[in-house]
Amino acid sequence: MTKSSVTTEQMQKRVDDFISQFEEGYFSPLAMIARLTEEVGELAREVNHHYGEKTKKSTEEEKAIEEELGDLLFVLITFSNSLNIDLGKAFETSMSKIESRDQDRFTKKEHSYDRSN
Amino acid sequence: MTKSSVTTEQMQKRVDDFISQFEEGYFSPLAMIARLTEEVGELAREVNHHYGEKTKKSTEEEKAIEEELGDLLFVLITFSNSLNIDLGKAFETSMSKIESRDQDRFTKKEHSYDRSN
Amino acid sequence: MTKSSVTTEQMQKRVDDFISQFEEGYFSPLAMIARLTEEVGELAREVNHHYGEKTKKSTEEEKAIEEELGDLLFVLITFSNSLNIDLGKAFETSMSKIESRDQDRFTKKEHSYDRSN
Amino acid sequence: MTKSSVTTEQMQKRVDDFISQFEEGYFSPLAMIARLTEEVGELAREVNHHYGEKTKKSTEEEKAIEEELGDLLFVLITFSNSLNIDLGKAFETSMSKIESRDQDRFTKKEHSYDRSN
Repeated sequence: MTKSSVTTEQMQKRVDDFISQFEEGYFSPLAMIARLTEEVGELAREVNHHYGEKTKKSTEEEKAIEEELGDLLFVLITFSNSLNIDLGKAFETSMSKIESRDQDRFTKKEHSYDRSN
Repeated sequence: MTKSSVTTEQMQKRVDDFISQFEEGYFSPLAMIARLTEEVGELAREVNHHYGEKTKKSTEEEKAIEEELGDLLFVLITFSNSLNIDLGKAFETSMSKIESRDQDRFTKKEHSYDRSN
Repeated sequence: MTKSSVTTEQMQKRVDDFISQFEEGYFSPLAMIARLTEEVGELAREVNHHYGEKTKKSTEEEKAIEEELGDLLFVLITFSNSLNIDLGKAFETSMSKIESRDQDRFTKKEHSYDRSN
Repeated sequence: MTKSSVTTEQMQKRVDDFISQFEEGYFSPLAMIARLTEEVGELAREVNHHYGEKTKKSTEEEKAIEEELGDLLFVLITFSNSLNIDLGKAFETSMSKIESRDQDRFTKKEHSYDRSN
């Protein structure tokens, strides 16, 4: 495990420890959606600046993308906590669905067929 | 650790194992933003149906929210992988920033002051 | 017609006159989606500040909402122009669909039934 | 004026006539943001299918983009109505700001300089 790796449980607890300090607590579900929309928008702006056409590229922008992604993850975890959703379980459910549903959606690399021998 | 808890490293690897099977590989950064926007939109619809005004509530919708959240997390991880962003590091950076920046943004609960004694 | 009312054709022409001055021209469709996402995010932030819970309200924020809405409309028109979509036609198509599809989705006010006499 | 062109005032009135039939009336500001997010997400999906990489193109998808754009415009007008925002005025304010602010943001085409002579 790399030094920076962290479990979904640790992330959800750290966010809850932070939010639980305050009287205000978690936002309502609709306000959380507005926060998610805001964060995806900020990420979109950075990506458009750095990877869109007609723009200057910089290393600073690359760092900005990582930061905006972290902020989006933070809001996503806050949203999960506010609705008592287990992030690890949500990932498992979604990933399992995608692994079976999208198995034939794209072109398999040749060596991927080996397993059928 | 709960049974469903999973590390950021495990999640990033599982998504990479899935995507790497296919010739198509990862989407471009702008196409990934479009995918994120789509997933946030699907989550917004479910939340509006379940927690918005003027609507019937159902347990099915609650499950749908968890599924849409998992799908959003999947796309967020795919985006991270495509740009070689370490999700655990992005979380740490964002969380540390928020913990120091927003310390006085909201009203501290009374017992939170205990630690300063 | 109020002084500020403007036709879809006038709006599309004014945006085109502006964009056409520049060598860069219109963004690609995916970059336009990133721009739309960014603008909806900025609108979401203002709305959450002004109408969300746990926040101070101000008249400045109300003006900010109107400005963000105008910016979103600008990007929507830019997007339409870049794909040669007639905004008036798109409105007509969507509105007609909604008027027939959602006729029974909500509760009609009593006097609305008069027309069936 | 083309046959399909319509004024902002006409569009706002037609939407209001539709919504005002129903007891439920307009959504709250945060629910409207969720609706906008949903519609931008649906537009993002269509654009990604049609203009993104790794996908088949079809004429049906082009029509779908126009329809999703119309739906987004409908929700934007609904949002404006619910907050008593004059769409024509919001466009004028935003457009005037952009015309002066972004005058030097991009590369002017050569003939555009003529006017300064």
